[in-house]
Amino acid sequence: MDIKSVIRTIPDYPKKGVMFRDITTLWQDAGGFRHVVDLLVWPYAGVRIDKVAGIEVRGFVLGGAIAHQLSVGFIPVRKKGKLPGDVISEQYELEYGTDTVEIHSDAIKTGDNVLLVDDLIATGGTAEAAINLLRRAGGTVIGAAFVIDLPEIGGAKRIEAMGINVRTLCAFDGD
Amino acid sequence: MDIKSVIRTIPDYPKKGVMFRDITTLWQDAGGFRHVVDLLVWPYAGVRIDKVAGIEVRGFVLGGAIAHQLSVGFIPVRKKGKLPGDVISEQYELEYGTDTVEIHSDAIKTGDNVLLVDDLIATGGTAEAAINLLRRAGGTVIGAAFVIDLPEIGGAKRIEAMGINVRTLCAFDGD
Repeated sequence: MDIKSVIRTIPDYPKKGVMFRDITTLWQDAGGFRHVVDLLVWPYAGVRIDKVAGIEVRGFVLGGAIAHQLSVGFIPVRKKGKLPGDVISEQYELEYGTDTVEIHSDAIKTGDNVLLVDDLIATGGTAEAAINLLRRAGGTVIGAAFVIDLPEIGGAKRIEAMGINVRTLCAFDGD
Repeated sequence: MDIKSVIRTIPDYPKKGVMFRDITTLWQDAGGFRHVVDLLVWPYAGVRIDKVAGIEVRGFVLGGAIAHQLSVGFIPVRKKGKLPGDVISEQYELEYGTDTVEIHSDAIKTGDNVLLVDDLIATGGTAEAAINLLRRAGGTVIGAAFVIDLPEIGGAKRIEAMGINVRTLCAFDGD
């Protein structure tokens, strides 16, 4: 199936000039949702994965499904102040200012193989911070999986430069 | 397995006197996560389900996994202003003030059978609003599934009074 055909583009959202790629139309499509989970998971057949980490908030839907498919645990990567237990944090740069992602301090055991999941990779800033966090916690990030790549923005290359295997299923440029 | 044993309680979070039930310790437990998905899904064997609706944000992890297990589509029920497309909204009362949940206007087709999913039911206010919303969109809510019930607060009874089959897997009182 053509994955791009079930992803809706909303022009000028959240601000003028941005073409927002809305993955909810893919999620609500039974065949589409199943298909992207299968496509993201199959390259890891035979690879030991201990945990799936999903990035708040759209990475939770796909990450929950992938963790279930692999029969492994799921770890939420959340924005600052959202997790109730003891956390470790990683700050990262935005265009203007900074942001912070967190995981629970006990979410990773040393040596855990972790697959990072999100719906879309743009600058890769959040994914890079999440990978730093998972590594600091003792995990080995064995891959990063996204449905949508925005290659002009270069995030996938940035994550590959960290030595991470990046998998994306479709790409949008300015169209 | 004893589901309660893998749910962490954090006293005085988010405010003094509240015993917060932290489901992330269940998610990160491979056996626990798999087990609760299986337990929530099996009563619906042989029942036609077209969509799983998950309530922001913890309902996304479980809802994604359950939608995948059932091979159906997933619909996010989000707080006001978070969805990028045209939405329908439902306002509901809080102890002090009001809140609003939204779904995309095209998320439900008339006659869709929908299973509502969240991690926990307390007052049931958000779940009630979500059910009203799904019904207004033309869906039939064939059940509401939660991992954790707080029976003293009475949310499950409130949802059952709407004619909805409610399934919960464990209960916490003040302990």
